[in-house]
Amino acid sequence: MPVNANRLLSDLRHLASFGRFETGVDRVAYSPQDIAARVWLADRLGEAGLDPVIDNVGNVYAQARNVRHAVLIGSHTDTVPKGGWLDGSLGVIYGLEIARCIAESGLGGRCGVDVISFQDEEGTYSSLFGSRSFCGEDVSRERAEATCRDGVRLIDAIETAGISTNPPTRLDPDRHLAYFEAHIEQGPRLEAAGEGVGVVTGIVGIRSFRIVFEGRADHAGTTPMDMRSDAGAAAVAFAARIAEGFRAASAPDTVWNLGVCTLAPGAVNVVPAEATLDFQFRDESTERLDRMEAMLHAIARDAAAAARTSVRVSRVLATEPTAMDPSLGRLIADSARELGVAHRAMPSGAGHDALVTARRIPSAMLFVPSIGGRSHHVSEDTSEADIVTGANVLLAAVEKRINAQN
Amino acid sequence: MPVNANRLLSDLRHLASFGRFETGVDRVAYSPQDIAARVWLADRLGEAGLDPVIDNVGNVYAQARNVRHAVLIGSHTDTVPKGGWLDGSLGVIYGLEIARCIAESGLGGRCGVDVISFQDEEGTYSSLFGSRSFCGEDVSRERAEATCRDGVRLIDAIETAGISTNPPTRLDPDRHLAYFEAHIEQGPRLEAAGEGVGVVTGIVGIRSFRIVFEGRADHAGTTPMDMRSDAGAAAVAFAARIAEGFRAASAPDTVWNLGVCTLAPGAVNVVPAEATLDFQFRDESTERLDRMEAMLHAIARDAAAAARTSVRVSRVLATEPTAMDPSLGRLIADSARELGVAHRAMPSGAGHDALVTARRIPSAMLFVPSIGGRSHHVSEDTSEADIVTGANVLLAAVEKRINAQN
Repeated sequence: MPVNANRLLSDLRHLASFGRFETGVDRVAYSPQDIAARVWLADRLGEAGLDPVIDNVGNVYAQARNVRHAVLIGSHTDTVPKGGWLDGSLGVIYGLEIARCIAESGLGGRCGVDVISFQDEEGTYSSLFGSRSFCGEDVSRERAEATCRDGVRLIDAIETAGISTNPPTRLDPDRHLAYFEAHIEQGPRLEAAGEGVGVVTGIVGIRSFRIVFEGRADHAGTTPMDMRSDAGAAAVAFAARIAEGFRAASAPDTVWNLGVCTLAPGAVNVVPAEATLDFQFRDESTERLDRMEAMLHAIARDAAAAARTSVRVSRVLATEPTAMDPSLGRLIADSARELGVAHRAMPSGAGHDALVTARRIPSAMLFVPSIGGRSHHVSEDTSEADIVTGANVLLAAVEKRINAQN
Repeated sequence: MPVNANRLLSDLRHLASFGRFETGVDRVAYSPQDIAARVWLADRLGEAGLDPVIDNVGNVYAQARNVRHAVLIGSHTDTVPKGGWLDGSLGVIYGLEIARCIAESGLGGRCGVDVISFQDEEGTYSSLFGSRSFCGEDVSRERAEATCRDGVRLIDAIETAGISTNPPTRLDPDRHLAYFEAHIEQGPRLEAAGEGVGVVTGIVGIRSFRIVFEGRADHAGTTPMDMRSDAGAAAVAFAARIAEGFRAASAPDTVWNLGVCTLAPGAVNVVPAEATLDFQFRDESTERLDRMEAMLHAIARDAAAAARTSVRVSRVLATEPTAMDPSLGRLIADSARELGVAHRAMPSGAGHDALVTARRIPSAMLFVPSIGGRSHHVSEDTSEADIVTGANVLLAAVEKRINAQN
């Protein structure tokens, strides 16, 4: 029993009309467009026979009626500014369509499908705010203090949206057997390999560092090479050696990035007195992240010493890797195999609401291909065939999970 | 017969009072301070028995009387903004003092000492403007079009200084047997080696390049390393490999510098789409400069290919090396040896007025140690002992040149 492809695509296209921007969507959390989309979504979930509410932070949560247990399916309908039409929306509309399919099939029994659209996954005010609230984490401080880039306070945005006195909603581990989140890959691997589905093994941990080398500004014509304290030379040696070292020490899916490099004073005829680097790496293994961090410190020290500079290394961000539930992952992989869909196990290099739910209940993610690997941009897209295929694989996996319970 | 050390130092200190700024001097070309210093200098040269004039671009030029030939000694009295007290001034006051010594010694005969302070060596409006005018190069375009950073036009600055209708002065190869310019080293070598004098072999050629790598901005978490078009990685590989290559291929005095590195869009979680580098190198040999430039192009191409980016290399500046006259250099070295002053042959890594005079007449430069290698800064300094030593070496060399003529 496949999903209703036309209904699925039609709902996805309709959702994209809220905040349409060029070929994408600009629908940041708590904007009028975001709230309108949430009201529309709640109506669709009600039409599908669920009991929808919008809670006190803006999550749209819809419970199946007359069941003791439920599989929770969802993602988020807020976007980044000038974002794409599928990021988040795909996983939510999959939830809506699968809830309808399960209801129509009469499969449910004592176990149904609940659907959720979390609020502000993208961090317009505070990343993963809705899922953290739903999962019972203490978000009172963000609620009171967070502001968006324009300076608007989160607490005022909630007030303006007219939801501040709504009741909260909460994850219920007795009810919620599992959380399934489908998402576009946001990378090029599935498309490049011609595979329809990625079974996410975990969400990588991220470590970001600011590395500042300090040397001495000297005349670049009159100061011999061996008498310089060259912060730029230190930075270049560091960046070259860490690329080498990480290539040798990393796993196939490990990634790293030098995103910022600034030399001061920044004149071609002055030896740089200061070099500032922002460097980040991501991996599924805490142990490997630790080894990479130790390597980073050693290489920074060596590069500074060789260039006769000092160095300061600051850890700016460190998030732990989050494993997805292997049993649920197997249900997705088995479903893909049965449907003849080429698939692969892969980590998620970006954060998702599933990393929050995974702290409380078994959680799984499924990726569909992103055309050109593009996301967070109006050019973000996935072929209709891949969208439908992903929905069918997830539906089959959800059926397996429900059958296991009934 | 040594120089009069007190008179020399007293004149140097007095010159530093024009435009005094903290422990240095702010006396940019054509400023009221600069013009006042030039009037003072002309008066001192007149007191010394020379015939001083300020010409139509601001050069102070003083001829010895009743001679057929002259050794020309000088440098410049304009400074960079917030500069030091010795850069340029040292070579001019050496000229004043040596002219006095030669006159007092009765050595002159048919060959005397002319003294010059060139205008705007530092390029407030146009680098080496005064020496190029004096040496008969066509400066009419700069005179008409050049402006300073504040937007003031050179032609208006000359008008304001009240010198626009003054007669020009010109180098006369029949009269001027040689040009001697003393200058602070602006680097740390002489001080580090405990040497009193540097005999300049030549002024290096400079080549400056802007290198722009263009790749593609991708999500740094979700894009595998081998599917990126990483402009930052290309830039790092280029910079690391060119440092290696130049270390192997260069002469001991070759210098190079990566002064600017910018990654765009410049976020730690976005693979850089564009990297812009400003890179410069200097050497005394045109042939070696050519080899280095060829190496630069090859390394840029390889680095771009390895990182799957494109690259554009633009030559922003290319000045040819200028050799100093070896016979005059030997006179300086012989004088140092006779006076027991440790010395070395060395290139000048920075440009000086002598590179203009050398196109017309035999020219030579002598360096004195810079404390800490500092210059173009209020901390610029040279010990009084080194200042006096340099003057005595130059006086002896000038005597040798005059004796050879008489």
